Amino acid sequence: MESDRDFNVFVQGCPSREIMQRLGDKWTPLVLLALAGGPLRFSALRQRIGAVTPKVLTSTLRTLERDGLLLRTVTAQVPVRVDYELSEVGRSLLGPLEAIRLWSEEHVPGVLRARDEFDRTRDGAAL
Amino acid sequence: MESDRDFNVFVQGCPSREIMQRLGDKWTPLVLLALAGGPLRFSALRQRIGAVTPKVLTSTLRTLERDGLLLRTVTAQVPVRVDYELSEVGRSLLGPLEAIRLWSEEHVPGVLRARDEFDRTRDGAAL
Repeated sequence: MESDRDFNVFVQGCPSREIMQRLGDKWTPLVLLALAGGPLRFSALRQRIGAVTPKVLTSTLRTLERDGLLLRTVTAQVPVRVDYELSEVGRSLLGPLEAIRLWSEEHVPGVLRARDEFDRTRDGAAL
Repeated sequence: MESDRDFNVFVQGCPSREIMQRLGDKWTPLVLLALAGGPLRFSALRQRIGAVTPKVLTSTLRTLERDGLLLRTVTAQVPVRVDYELSEVGRSLLGPLEAIRLWSEEHVPGVLRARDEFDRTRDGAAL
């Protein structure tokens, strides 16, 4: 159970915990998965993900760029063209994220059934 | 890139998206990983995770129970004993979550270096 590495998500204040928690923020997995097929411009990325505001997407992209997970390329043209693509480090996350994605897609019926059951048999109304 | 399943996290309103986003909430991965070794009582779980308030941990556990990812066993004694353990469905998430955890622990030095570099060379002060 314990890691033999220098960093451990179960140690409070360990930067690995903050990194793992950030990977799980609302839009990060969708952004990284959306870029699995290659570079995308901001507008195409936003369209692919949907339901994310430009402001939040910009902030998510900036955080990922700062962490070294994606590369931002600015091409001088009118209007300026900005492309985003995964770095090599970012690509190394795709395997685990694809697994989480497939799990989520496969388990929809089971999770929905479990919720119904819980709400029917327990005082789950407050949730 | 597209899934051939009935559910797709890139479709707005698809329940798989909400399920994936919930898996990434701040405490869910730590709770599931903390239970990898077997059942734990609330207090032991809280100690293992650290830095989580009882209220937030209770809410996280209830959501996971409702979704069918963990089992809650109440033993009638004084004081009442409550144990939490992963369901079979919950256990099926451990592989992907362990991969995310290991990635986070392995990439601490690289991510911290990338942040330093970004802040030194870009106008990253606003982050």
